[in-house]
Amino acid sequence: MEFSSKLLEKAVNEMAQLPGIGKRTALRLVLHLLKQPKEQTQLLATALLQLREDIRFCSRCHNISDEEICDICSNTSREQAVVCVVEDIRDVMALENTGLYKGLYHVLGGKISPIDGVGPGQLNITSLVEKVKSGQVKEIIFALSSTMEGDTTNFYIYKQIKDNSVIISAIARGIAIGDELEYADEITLGRSILHRIPFENAIKNS
Amino acid sequence: MEFSSKLLEKAVNEMAQLPGIGKRTALRLVLHLLKQPKEQTQLLATALLQLREDIRFCSRCHNISDEEICDICSNTSREQAVVCVVEDIRDVMALENTGLYKGLYHVLGGKISPIDGVGPGQLNITSLVEKVKSGQVKEIIFALSSTMEGDTTNFYIYKQIKDNSVIISAIARGIAIGDELEYADEITLGRSILHRIPFENAIKNS
Repeated sequence: MEFSSKLLEKAVNEMAQLPGIGKRTALRLVLHLLKQPKEQTQLLATALLQLREDIRFCSRCHNISDEEICDICSNTSREQAVVCVVEDIRDVMALENTGLYKGLYHVLGGKISPIDGVGPGQLNITSLVEKVKSGQVKEIIFALSSTMEGDTTNFYIYKQIKDNSVIISAIARGIAIGDELEYADEITLGRSILHRIPFENAIKNS
Repeated sequence: MEFSSKLLEKAVNEMAQLPGIGKRTALRLVLHLLKQPKEQTQLLATALLQLREDIRFCSRCHNISDEEICDICSNTSREQAVVCVVEDIRDVMALENTGLYKGLYHVLGGKISPIDGVGPGQLNITSLVEKVKSGQVKEIIFALSSTMEGDTTNFYIYKQIKDNSVIISAIARGIAIGDELEYADEITLGRSILHRIPFENAIKNS
């Protein structure tokens, strides 16, 4: 791409660093900003800079938070001894949206992935293991995505906490509500028949 | 969407103002920036701010440019009396990529579109009409997209310049190279048979 302006080229190149944004899309976004009032660009730039500069993580669960302790961890009406292990803040938001989970979270900040160069040391695993060893935790729920990386991470943590008196569970895998059985993949269908639950339980929350 | 941090919420909301970026995508982009070194966010923010602050437009063709007169307008080896009328810088870049056009451009900055609240006054039309009236221009080529807005804009300009001694042309519409005739829409196919060209001309640039 040949640009008539170095300023434009620089802005497009920086925008195109974002995941899923190619050069054409970046150009479209930058040209859009040029057509809007200056304030919009200033607000965007300031919001990004402030976030990156002042970002804080809850010292207990490592979720993004503006306070030392996040709203969820400091909510005493939640079950303090149940901890759900998730990858990032999006999973916390998704689980919170269900309105059905009343325990706390532990945000790992990623999954163990040798291909992407992410080892256990870069994740918030040590603090989770310490939390369990301190005896404060009654149940750990693994809620990582069911990929090879997710399974590896689960197992890595499992090995370090299994000798403590803690219940270790994982979220249920199965056919999604509303899905047709015939279109489900074999592994999911297989798991959902193996891990079947009493019918009374199944109709409880529907 | 419920956010655990006001800073995060603000950044996501600003990012989601961009066209084609929803809240989910915005969150993904912002979380990506959080995982990258601080410098990346700073470079992006600075590039956007600088562009918006220092942006200049060529005083002749209104294309984005870092100089008073852009590279194309100041290139004396180009045909100074042929002016191609386009909507924005992307069209200039696309035409320049062909390597076949050696004249100058005139960037309107949009199309007349009452629905989007864009009237002729917001576009660079007056300077184009003056350019023609001054007698410097031998040929005007309309290269706006063939939508109702494009046609309206073409016609609006045409009415103001038609009484001058200037050739007024429009880029050829027809079946794209490589396209099958049977899948072409009727209007395009109709135009391409009406506006047929001598075969010798057709094979000249292939």
